[in-house]
Amino acid sequence: MTQTETQHLAETPLDALRHELEDLLGERLQTGQAIREQHANTATGRGTQAPDMVTWPETTEEVSRILRACWTHGVPVIPFGAGSSLEGQLNAPRGGVSVDMSRMAQVLEVRDEDLLAVVQPGITRKRLNEELRATGLTFPIDPGADASVGGMCATRASGTNAVRYGTMADNVLALEVVLADGTVVRTGSRAAKSSAGYDLTRLMIGSEGTLGVITEATLRLRGIPETVLGGIAAFPDLDSAVSAVILLVQMGLDIGRVELLDGMQIRACNAYSKLDLEETVTLFFECTGSEAVARDTAETFAELARDAGATHIDWSTDPDTRSKLWQARHDAYWAALALRPGCKGLVSDACVPISALAANIAAAQEDLQAKGLIGTILGHVGDGNFHVVLMTDPEDADEARRVEDFLHGVTLRAQAAGGTCTGEHGIGQGKIGALAEEAGPAVAVMRAVKQALDPKNILNPGKIFEVSQ
Amino acid sequence: MTQTETQHLAETPLDALRHELEDLLGERLQTGQAIREQHANTATGRGTQAPDMVTWPETTEEVSRILRACWTHGVPVIPFGAGSSLEGQLNAPRGGVSVDMSRMAQVLEVRDEDLLAVVQPGITRKRLNEELRATGLTFPIDPGADASVGGMCATRASGTNAVRYGTMADNVLALEVVLADGTVVRTGSRAAKSSAGYDLTRLMIGSEGTLGVITEATLRLRGIPETVLGGIAAFPDLDSAVSAVILLVQMGLDIGRVELLDGMQIRACNAYSKLDLEETVTLFFECTGSEAVARDTAETFAELARDAGATHIDWSTDPDTRSKLWQARHDAYWAALALRPGCKGLVSDACVPISALAANIAAAQEDLQAKGLIGTILGHVGDGNFHVVLMTDPEDADEARRVEDFLHGVTLRAQAAGGTCTGEHGIGQGKIGALAEEAGPAVAVMRAVKQALDPKNILNPGKIFEVSQ
Repeated sequence: MTQTETQHLAETPLDALRHELEDLLGERLQTGQAIREQHANTATGRGTQAPDMVTWPETTEEVSRILRACWTHGVPVIPFGAGSSLEGQLNAPRGGVSVDMSRMAQVLEVRDEDLLAVVQPGITRKRLNEELRATGLTFPIDPGADASVGGMCATRASGTNAVRYGTMADNVLALEVVLADGTVVRTGSRAAKSSAGYDLTRLMIGSEGTLGVITEATLRLRGIPETVLGGIAAFPDLDSAVSAVILLVQMGLDIGRVELLDGMQIRACNAYSKLDLEETVTLFFECTGSEAVARDTAETFAELARDAGATHIDWSTDPDTRSKLWQARHDAYWAALALRPGCKGLVSDACVPISALAANIAAAQEDLQAKGLIGTILGHVGDGNFHVVLMTDPEDADEARRVEDFLHGVTLRAQAAGGTCTGEHGIGQGKIGALAEEAGPAVAVMRAVKQALDPKNILNPGKIFEVSQ
Repeated sequence: MTQTETQHLAETPLDALRHELEDLLGERLQTGQAIREQHANTATGRGTQAPDMVTWPETTEEVSRILRACWTHGVPVIPFGAGSSLEGQLNAPRGGVSVDMSRMAQVLEVRDEDLLAVVQPGITRKRLNEELRATGLTFPIDPGADASVGGMCATRASGTNAVRYGTMADNVLALEVVLADGTVVRTGSRAAKSSAGYDLTRLMIGSEGTLGVITEATLRLRGIPETVLGGIAAFPDLDSAVSAVILLVQMGLDIGRVELLDGMQIRACNAYSKLDLEETVTLFFECTGSEAVARDTAETFAELARDAGATHIDWSTDPDTRSKLWQARHDAYWAALALRPGCKGLVSDACVPISALAANIAAAQEDLQAKGLIGTILGHVGDGNFHVVLMTDPEDADEARRVEDFLHGVTLRAQAAGGTCTGEHGIGQGKIGALAEEAGPAVAVMRAVKQALDPKNILNPGKIFEVSQ
């Protein structure tokens, strides 16, 4: 037996895998601790569980070969987009290989006549819209962070435009996915709708990397509206603001966006984004279309907001005014954190039937007070989705327990109202228990699907639900 | 051994099942030939393959017990809604139990504030909208037939409103489903959006009864618009009509409906529905919203239709005029069949990227001529979905071959253009080969999911794909 053979026999599966992947990727495989930790759990408050190595594939073929190798050796695979997930989706509790998609970030094709683009998963939403600028088209899904398209697919992301354009589930026509054993499949087509068999595209959207690694997405684009009109409506209290939203949803008014910020969040935005708004519950809204349509929509909305009790309404078509407002909305999370220097942000994500929205938000506000916690409220209210941005002291163990109780309460109240523990952030590690409560026996169906497509449980294990090994 | 025991031992699984189900259902189990044949393959041109018995459950519990019994005895289950499917979805190639949902047809709950209704699967879309009338809300999905909600879920149906409101995939929030072994699960929630684990609702939508029997659906409703304005735009040729649609889609104009009818279809509608339209390619359109918005949308559309070459444009807010027009559109299939008395109708269902629509329709028209077939064109053109309604002679075997070739050609051209063999009718038995061509290795993923959820292959076997026994 030669020395090489001896070494080979002594190799662990992980060593053997590393050697194979080094041959395939060279410098595009890294094992340094800092890099590994950067690829785990980047934007959450949970403890970091680093993968064993990080890879940067450049082609679908390479992703397939990485997965085939991981499959052979039974080593976990954790797909990595922009690192902006919030529920521990990127942690590697069993170690394994992080597959960083940042080198697969091209727009492969834009078909303006068909309002679609084919992109690689590593491209971020801002970069995509920059590349689309010349076409007059846009991809409207806008989570708070500058997430990657692949990550947005994986968490079924949405954002402020969902009330008009839907979520990732409504705006992805087709995917290319590498399955656990390295097989490459394409789901969907370029048609706007289809009844051709099981909806595998939507099975993959929201599966958080547990069923396959997304290597290409065909996205539905929208024309940039002729006129965009943005404004604010200030209300004396939460109930009146939510009433205005209920009325607009019931009327079927095609509002572009409608976001709720509570008084404390307005205070934060005033300070951080140099606004001068009254510190009370406020709706940021946007109306789009031809000038006549945008104006008529805004007037209708203003009327019903006034009926609901709005004390001040203001809007503008001036791009600078609008963009200052919406930039402030997009920076709201950072503005909130700036209220408590040195704090760590944690964000809840309940989504409820709209009739239950005011009560759910009010209960959250009361519970913040009762538990002595500091948080602001931000809501994609047209969808019944609201976030509490908690400013927590990472060193205070007692506060951490109160925060955990608080977040659990938000989830329980949403579920009791027929809603869900997560409107757009996903389950990850953070909401495994909440999903089990919410979905009940349906979790067994999810597990059966997982078992069918990934029998060795190598794809992002320990996320969404536990799988017994 | 008593005689009863001997009989028992000699029983086939089917006999044993029948005895169990008779005990459970009494008169609500029937085995007469006429009833069995009525429950197979009701609206298609394919040969009839009748089930062995027909059942009429009245509760989810009864559906669960029927499935548990079928599971135990390994006997197929074929869910039955209104019998309006077009691709042989209701045939029973291996016999089995038809589960007719017509006695589970109630609206269980309407929540107007939340714009949702919880219904049983047997209710038809027209009946549902009658029951909703007093609320000012509507469920907009409108396939040609008065289908059941359960059937519409199962085939991922759509219709003329999909360009504005989407398909069944976009308008069902939650389902109750009985799985192959009788387990009852609930998918989704009452929230407008969710990232809570795998999207089982959308996995079930379009699964054609092969993954479970739907026993309840939570539907998203819409407000009936303040103003509805309906009209027609006549064009000299197909290209100019489709150009107008491409422009409107690119502008993101919120049209309510836009349907294309070719000259021969207009001739059929004139005769059948007593209209007086010019016999040329025509778009039927509808604009909705406040009066100002509807009118502005119609004017914008009229302008771009004229730019595209429309020779005549006319619209009205008068409910009688509008409803005569749209009733004619809804009766277009019957109008077409009336062109050739005694004929049998067969309908294609390609859906393509809109840039390929004119060429795909033109090629179909040319191929009709080349093959000596008679057919009209009807298109949900905003989605790129078009139907050829073929009027065939059921006695003419040579024509039947040409029809089959023609339909295959429609599918092949759609797939070559990046589209799909079915926009809204599903796969059933009729398009198993077409799906295999279109989805390639993804069919193996569908089969793996099927195997995981229905390992005995008792749920509507022989549909969507073949499963080796």
